[in-house]
Amino acid sequence: MNAITDTTPALDAIVLLETAARAARAAAAELARAPRPAKDRALREAAAALRRATPAILAANAADVLGAPDLSPAFKDRLTLTPSRIEAMAKGLEEVAELPDPVGRTLAEWTRPNGLRIRRIAQPLGVIGMIFESRPNVAADAAALCLKSGNAVILRGGRESLRSVAAIHAAMAAGLREAGLPEAAVQVAPNADRAFVGAMLGAAGLIDLIIPRGGKGLVTRVMEEARVPVLAHAEGLCHTYVHAAAEPEMARRVLTNAKMRRTGVCGATETLLIDAAIAPSLLPLLVADLKALGCDFRADDRARAICPALPAASAGDFGTEWLDAILNVAVVDGVAAAIAHIRRHGSEHTEAIITEDAAAAEEFLAGIASAVGLWNASTQFCDGGEFGFGAEIGIATGRLHARGPVGLEQLCTYRYHILGTGQVRP
Amino acid sequence: MNAITDTTPALDAIVLLETAARAARAAAAELARAPRPAKDRALREAAAALRRATPAILAANAADVLGAPDLSPAFKDRLTLTPSRIEAMAKGLEEVAELPDPVGRTLAEWTRPNGLRIRRIAQPLGVIGMIFESRPNVAADAAALCLKSGNAVILRGGRESLRSVAAIHAAMAAGLREAGLPEAAVQVAPNADRAFVGAMLGAAGLIDLIIPRGGKGLVTRVMEEARVPVLAHAEGLCHTYVHAAAEPEMARRVLTNAKMRRTGVCGATETLLIDAAIAPSLLPLLVADLKALGCDFRADDRARAICPALPAASAGDFGTEWLDAILNVAVVDGVAAAIAHIRRHGSEHTEAIITEDAAAAEEFLAGIASAVGLWNASTQFCDGGEFGFGAEIGIATGRLHARGPVGLEQLCTYRYHILGTGQVRP
Repeated sequence: MNAITDTTPALDAIVLLETAARAARAAAAELARAPRPAKDRALREAAAALRRATPAILAANAADVLGAPDLSPAFKDRLTLTPSRIEAMAKGLEEVAELPDPVGRTLAEWTRPNGLRIRRIAQPLGVIGMIFESRPNVAADAAALCLKSGNAVILRGGRESLRSVAAIHAAMAAGLREAGLPEAAVQVAPNADRAFVGAMLGAAGLIDLIIPRGGKGLVTRVMEEARVPVLAHAEGLCHTYVHAAAEPEMARRVLTNAKMRRTGVCGATETLLIDAAIAPSLLPLLVADLKALGCDFRADDRARAICPALPAASAGDFGTEWLDAILNVAVVDGVAAAIAHIRRHGSEHTEAIITEDAAAAEEFLAGIASAVGLWNASTQFCDGGEFGFGAEIGIATGRLHARGPVGLEQLCTYRYHILGTGQVRP
Repeated sequence: MNAITDTTPALDAIVLLETAARAARAAAAELARAPRPAKDRALREAAAALRRATPAILAANAADVLGAPDLSPAFKDRLTLTPSRIEAMAKGLEEVAELPDPVGRTLAEWTRPNGLRIRRIAQPLGVIGMIFESRPNVAADAAALCLKSGNAVILRGGRESLRSVAAIHAAMAAGLREAGLPEAAVQVAPNADRAFVGAMLGAAGLIDLIIPRGGKGLVTRVMEEARVPVLAHAEGLCHTYVHAAAEPEMARRVLTNAKMRRTGVCGATETLLIDAAIAPSLLPLLVADLKALGCDFRADDRARAICPALPAASAGDFGTEWLDAILNVAVVDGVAAAIAHIRRHGSEHTEAIITEDAAAAEEFLAGIASAVGLWNASTQFCDGGEFGFGAEIGIATGRLHARGPVGLEQLCTYRYHILGTGQVRP
């Protein structure tokens, strides 16, 4: 499955996918029982293989970049691999090897009055389909997390990164071989055919979970077309609410970090909500802090009444994830109003309140439905590494199975083992 | 939304559903924060309302039964309500009121090196769509579990039970009113229009989870058409494996219960797998036990070599969920063969091994992927009540979110609350 062609019709795509999925299912059955040392060895050998293959990976990547001359500078930057990015990939694999094995954990255990002992045990989901674009390193990161959590994975990167992903895959396969694990545990789409993606999305029963990583267009297409369960990773339209009882210096420090630490991550704050009671004194300071770092603004009328130089927000701005140095600003009247704004415009991702008033913080946290709510900390903490998960395959914004950062534990499901002594049910 | 008509075209169905779903979403936001006493009061008042309305419910049910003259006796039995079945419904509501509130439980709690305190907290899924057929009491049972777990529910029963379900819904609504909870927390489909079901299945973003309860046709249609996540409740093609080291009297007792306690439940054993080493002495006894209770058989050649009177199994029999007094029988050679048979023919529901050999039991339990694995106990224990969940909305056989019996806790998702003191991310 290494031919790189773009001429496969749709039916062939379905056949190719089903073949891959069946091989993945068989590999998953084996992986589910693989001892931790074998999985860790595969990861470390893959890391070594990545390092050894650096020239070949760079050459493949150069061919990819050359073959896509019309890319924006930002896209080209995401597509490009360098020796240090390859080293980071290898280190990432080794870090996952250091993480505890999530498979087989006892999640709950209890004994019934009739003596039955019931255990709920973590087990891998099975076969995961990873659909991503632009960053080739996602192939290694995702493969590592799937492997460590006992899942088989089928990787499908963007057409621009086909050669790079194939080269990375070769290193993963080498690691699996060295560790005596089935090579079908990590597979790549054989070509750039969009029909293969369609086949993945329709493969209910063959693929257990689809994880999309990329821009809004990709995620939307996946979520609309998929018959397979999808780990929804929608927009990060995050809010930081500066409450009337906020400590001003904390508000300045936290908001600056929440917006400007990195503007392109999903946990970046897109909208500042600020209480009318504190806005006259504090808003000008917040604006000045951010302006000094190059941030632009989209402000409602009440904010512009305090800071007239702020550009006016248009109708759709409060529902826009800028992923850039642009901050929406709205003045609100208290916690309930902040919650209402978030429920109307947010994406249930991550929201923060800055306040010294514990009751207000409780009311805020209780009133939002988002995956993550913070009191007196930056929204940029919505990250698997910051949570202590060690690594993350994405942030889930849907409501089922997993919410927030998705790490090894979230790539598992569970089952029950019941130990009896011959009990029968009345 | 109480008109019982069957002339609504598809577009109207979508509009009706979206109106209901939005009202449900608003109700769910309120329910998520409702204190336990309010929810319990709604349940108890609904139970009282059910009892008071017994004559009206019986009259509605009689009209339903009269309006469907071509039903099989079994279907008619499932459709029919009696005073004792209504009393059981009311008792069921009161039992759910006794259960602990799953909302707001702290599922995990930890502190990061930077001092951030992270809590994972259970919260309701939101809006649940319950699509069921034949048994009107499902309306009350499901509504009770959804309400107690803070979820709003839209109920759509079969066309044959339209009046019965409407009458039951009226009692639920009375309970909600008495407790000061929003009536939109429990809604019913306004008519028997199949397009309303289609609208529910397509309502991604409006409905958070669809739960189908009914025959294979219904569940299959739901799982094929739904864009909303579905709590898969596929077949219960359960196996009991009598290992060579089984204690014979235990095997006889447990198998009899696993097959014949109730043949129509999803946890009923459909296939007996028996080791060749013990079959000659034990299989005739097992067959005699079951035959005496009226059970029929479909046996492979190796079983028929031991018990020639057994009818021969046809090609598809080992993949058939009989839900009747018919047992498939196959002779196997050891644990690996039993696992292979289960993986080929089973539905990942519930499997049991009878043995005194702990190593064989471990190998069996580790080798199957089913939601429930039992050692020395009856497969009929796959039930929310038997697990200690108090009640159950169904058995999940998919791999995501929930597996096995689905009770109050499984109708919840989670979110994170993070308590800081002004931390920013480096």
